[in-house]
Amino acid sequence: MSFDWIADSPPLPSAEHRERAVARQARLTKPAGSLGRMESVAIELAALQRRDRPGARQVPVLIFAGDHGVAAQAISAYPQEVTVQMLHNFASGGAAIAVLARELELSLQVIDAGSVATHAIAGVITDKPCLGTRDISREAAMSEGELAHALSAGRRALATCVEPDLVVLGEMGIGNTTAASALACALTGLSPAQLVGAGTGLDAARIAHKRSVVEQALALHGPALADPQAPAWEALRRLGGLEIAAMAGAMIAAAQRGVPVLVDGFIVSVAALAAITLQPQLRPWLLFSHQSAELGHAHVLAALQAQALLQLDLRLGEGSGAALAVPLLRLACALHNDMATFEDAAVYNRGDAG
Amino acid sequence: MSFDWIADSPPLPSAEHRERAVARQARLTKPAGSLGRMESVAIELAALQRRDRPGARQVPVLIFAGDHGVAAQAISAYPQEVTVQMLHNFASGGAAIAVLARELELSLQVIDAGSVATHAIAGVITDKPCLGTRDISREAAMSEGELAHALSAGRRALATCVEPDLVVLGEMGIGNTTAASALACALTGLSPAQLVGAGTGLDAARIAHKRSVVEQALALHGPALADPQAPAWEALRRLGGLEIAAMAGAMIAAAQRGVPVLVDGFIVSVAALAAITLQPQLRPWLLFSHQSAELGHAHVLAALQAQALLQLDLRLGEGSGAALAVPLLRLACALHNDMATFEDAAVYNRGDAG
Repeated sequence: MSFDWIADSPPLPSAEHRERAVARQARLTKPAGSLGRMESVAIELAALQRRDRPGARQVPVLIFAGDHGVAAQAISAYPQEVTVQMLHNFASGGAAIAVLARELELSLQVIDAGSVATHAIAGVITDKPCLGTRDISREAAMSEGELAHALSAGRRALATCVEPDLVVLGEMGIGNTTAASALACALTGLSPAQLVGAGTGLDAARIAHKRSVVEQALALHGPALADPQAPAWEALRRLGGLEIAAMAGAMIAAAQRGVPVLVDGFIVSVAALAAITLQPQLRPWLLFSHQSAELGHAHVLAALQAQALLQLDLRLGEGSGAALAVPLLRLACALHNDMATFEDAAVYNRGDAG
Repeated sequence: MSFDWIADSPPLPSAEHRERAVARQARLTKPAGSLGRMESVAIELAALQRRDRPGARQVPVLIFAGDHGVAAQAISAYPQEVTVQMLHNFASGGAAIAVLARELELSLQVIDAGSVATHAIAGVITDKPCLGTRDISREAAMSEGELAHALSAGRRALATCVEPDLVVLGEMGIGNTTAASALACALTGLSPAQLVGAGTGLDAARIAHKRSVVEQALALHGPALADPQAPAWEALRRLGGLEIAAMAGAMIAAAQRGVPVLVDGFIVSVAALAAITLQPQLRPWLLFSHQSAELGHAHVLAALQAQALLQLDLRLGEGSGAALAVPLLRLACALHNDMATFEDAAVYNRGDAG
């Protein structure tokens, strides 16, 4: 396994298509700007997809699951076996993202990128270097080889998507808000007090414990991460997760292919932070679907200079918030593509009045 | 025409269905509460629709248009003829709401509830007592008979909807943010500084002018409205609009029939304020789709103790924000109805642990 592929720069969004999309929005029969975020999203997609008629019809959903050694520190409201139980639930269609994918006619691919399952699960692609990460409060989460495998697993999954208009990435993994919080602290310099939250539903005492575990991990790995000779991926290797690394790899591969990524909640946003560290040209390819109820998400979005489309107090993961935003992207494209212009409809255009 | 029908009380939402919906949400395979607003919306719809499996498949869209005498005071960025031009644009399918209705497979009915058009428009239902309102800065907008007609026009339009799961109401009318702002001031006691905004896109100087026109209207009608003997509908009659009254009538008729109403932006929310004044049992039947970029909307939502689902900087009207929320309601219902329970999926339930 190698990290070399990550260095290939994604293309820039098309300034020409952006300009034409802006001009088209100004000719549609509505007061300028009155469709707010629907306008900016359509313009953004036109620039990224290099099309005059942007679209969000084909949106494959890739869900990456992984387990976390730090679960041994009792930082989740749920036991580790839930990761594998949920892999079965994704495959059998009962999980939230499975329902959403069905309803929206999105293809759903579930990748076991590092759960503790020792057997293959029907309907789930297994692509993992090991059974879960090691406990970040005691040692590095992954070896270099394991990290390289996980990043490539994301790239492999992305490569199977056929003519995607954009792609939704989601995750599942008991303990992964702990890993993501630690990783986000390392990447942003923000504190555990700002980034460690309730996860699947901890009370105040258990959040305080989770925070102390993250502080311990940061104290342990801090010196190595402060080393200016450390590779760009060192924080991800030491503090991240296999599903987080796989998502980072999938994002970079999507951007390299010219495919926009619809980012879900806290964990996926932290994967985005890590991926940008590895490939700084990635950022324009990321669209942000929702702001989660998880404490740290607002801070991570601010660090990414991102404004999410939805705020629905979600904190489930699984790509569920991104899936909920897909209909809005589709409607933004339909408005952009199908509304009448002032000329077509013989409606008075304020712009004409001069 | 009479106002008598308005006094019939809408039913109460079903406490029994609400309880069963809350219990079902707790058994679905996700941490309790992790689907946020999607959970509360599904529970609300179950209680209103008196169903264990709520739905948002059949959602007729009713768009009411009306003209405003106050347009003579130059309070809009667009001339009055745009109302009629847009009626043609709704009917021919080029307007934003027409595109959204098509994309979402919503039936769209456009009602000329009071434009200045002197002829019938193909594809538009004409149901109006007069050609626009009178200038509220100089006299009352409507006579009693005109108001009664407009309220009934809303009721008649609602009656044509076949087995609706819920209904979307929207509006069009040059000058109607001015009328709605004046009406909202009268109904809430808030000031023109809080409620008068840019409408279709006024600059600061023209907003100041619009504000002074609203102040003039409030000074003129204030004494009559302060009279404790004034009928409940007096503010609506003096300061409202024909399309605003028609929407208020449609809301009350929907609630009386047990049909929830998905409220759009600023103007529709002000119609809701007025409708609640006429029929206080209406409130539980109203769901709020989005918070508009129009200045006063946040205040009006607060007065209604309402929290909108979406915040997308929309300020178009036409029911466009409500239409954009329809997919979210559909997905909330799908999640509620189709997700696996912990028992079904053999996933560890934290609640079991005791």
